[in-house]
Amino acid sequence: MTPATVRLQIAKVEGRITRPREDNLAVEAPLEIRVRSRSLAITMRTPGHDFELAAGFLLAEDIISSGSQIREMTSPQPDVVDIDLSPDAVIERPKSQRELIMTSACGVCGKESLESLAVNRCPVLPPTRFRIDAAVIHRLPQELREKQEVFESTGGLHAAALFDEHGEMHSLREDVGRHNAVDKLVGHSLLRFRAPLRDSIMLVSGRASFELAQKASMAGIPMLAAVGAPSSLAVSTAERCGMTLIGFLRNGGFNVYCGGARIAGLTDQELVSPL
Amino acid sequence: MTPATVRLQIAKVEGRITRPREDNLAVEAPLEIRVRSRSLAITMRTPGHDFELAAGFLLAEDIISSGSQIREMTSPQPDVVDIDLSPDAVIERPKSQRELIMTSACGVCGKESLESLAVNRCPVLPPTRFRIDAAVIHRLPQELREKQEVFESTGGLHAAALFDEHGEMHSLREDVGRHNAVDKLVGHSLLRFRAPLRDSIMLVSGRASFELAQKASMAGIPMLAAVGAPSSLAVSTAERCGMTLIGFLRNGGFNVYCGGARIAGLTDQELVSPL
Repeated sequence: MTPATVRLQIAKVEGRITRPREDNLAVEAPLEIRVRSRSLAITMRTPGHDFELAAGFLLAEDIISSGSQIREMTSPQPDVVDIDLSPDAVIERPKSQRELIMTSACGVCGKESLESLAVNRCPVLPPTRFRIDAAVIHRLPQELREKQEVFESTGGLHAAALFDEHGEMHSLREDVGRHNAVDKLVGHSLLRFRAPLRDSIMLVSGRASFELAQKASMAGIPMLAAVGAPSSLAVSTAERCGMTLIGFLRNGGFNVYCGGARIAGLTDQELVSPL
Repeated sequence: MTPATVRLQIAKVEGRITRPREDNLAVEAPLEIRVRSRSLAITMRTPGHDFELAAGFLLAEDIISSGSQIREMTSPQPDVVDIDLSPDAVIERPKSQRELIMTSACGVCGKESLESLAVNRCPVLPPTRFRIDAAVIHRLPQELREKQEVFESTGGLHAAALFDEHGEMHSLREDVGRHNAVDKLVGHSLLRFRAPLRDSIMLVSGRASFELAQKASMAGIPMLAAVGAPSSLAVSTAERCGMTLIGFLRNGGFNVYCGGARIAGLTDQELVSPL
């Protein structure tokens, strides 16, 4: 059973002071839900209560209406749940249309099996000389808050913004879905032929999940910073892609999870680099 | 162009005092992304910058690598973007496997067209006598925080919990994905043959999106409360299903968006009911 949290050695930065620390991260890992051995859906979830997750998912999707329609639930391999349903549980699958579905906007859902999941698809970033001073990083959340157009009036939107090494904000986008805010931000540059974004840092207003790290890497962004917590898979994805990942960027401090060599102006630089 | 925010008449509750108020909500609406007139994905987004969203999505999905591969973007109807790509942009679509995809864990992504989106599928809740006192509602967030197992150590998890009319917590689940936390919570009851959950209120630690309202209605839960903001589509979905929706439940106050008749012990009850 995969645990729900994992402990990591990180570097905690306050001002310019760097200290080693252990940090607890929420685990994010794919779960494949199968019905009668056929793959139905994949979700990125925190391990634990997987049978409940699969059962609740089937109810929400109107495939079952009662627990008595579940004959058996098994876990044939880690991160897979297979469900045997009574014959009256029907899965709609109009063939002519379903093959149009390629994927979902969340970057994960809709993939038809664990093998097809793009966890290995994130490109390794080419070396860049992009570096940013810790003092500049500390200023970014305030910049984001000041420029957010809609958040203040609804409290319901995620924001994502791109900054250069001087902390100059180049673009900002907001959306109810954090993945959409990132897609809009990257698309903005793409439509101006300004991608890949090798000389920029992306700040997101909430947490950093796998999909945000994956989208950043596809856009060639070397640094991802989040006001909230990163997930385990966000960290391992950023690490594999050679990206810098910063979390809990607020109140004059931040955590460095990987790629600290791009951060300048710190004491004990060896603590954040290479990690 | 659909606006990014919408103004609603709501009831603001502080203690037992109820006041009418106008509230700004972030709009959540489906966007269908088509490539060469074929449906590729649907995402629930806040309207605005839709072309950028589609372009960034195509990059993240590895369908294009540069803006020059986009020949033309049009909006043949509201909430639809159609993209013409240069011939070198290839969409992988292995037919034998794609038809296995039914849907995604987010309740929306993976649906193949706007028509198939389940915005009309939420069942109207049968009448219940479930009522809960405002004083009990005020206590729920503190209960949730005290019982959260993992959040305190990672800061990275969403929580969802079910309470009865006395504020007794029956179950709590946490996950990096808010939809997963809700699926686990509902699945927990389902596997004990305790669904539908007609006599309970569900509290979620973050914001209330369409998918959470949809999942609650499928489980027969008559009241949904969120510590954060609801989206426009969460409110209209809850309204159509006959559900009570409460938002910004914190610091001794909350907003009532619909279904206030289930809340007892308020002054000016007519302000929250029927809304």
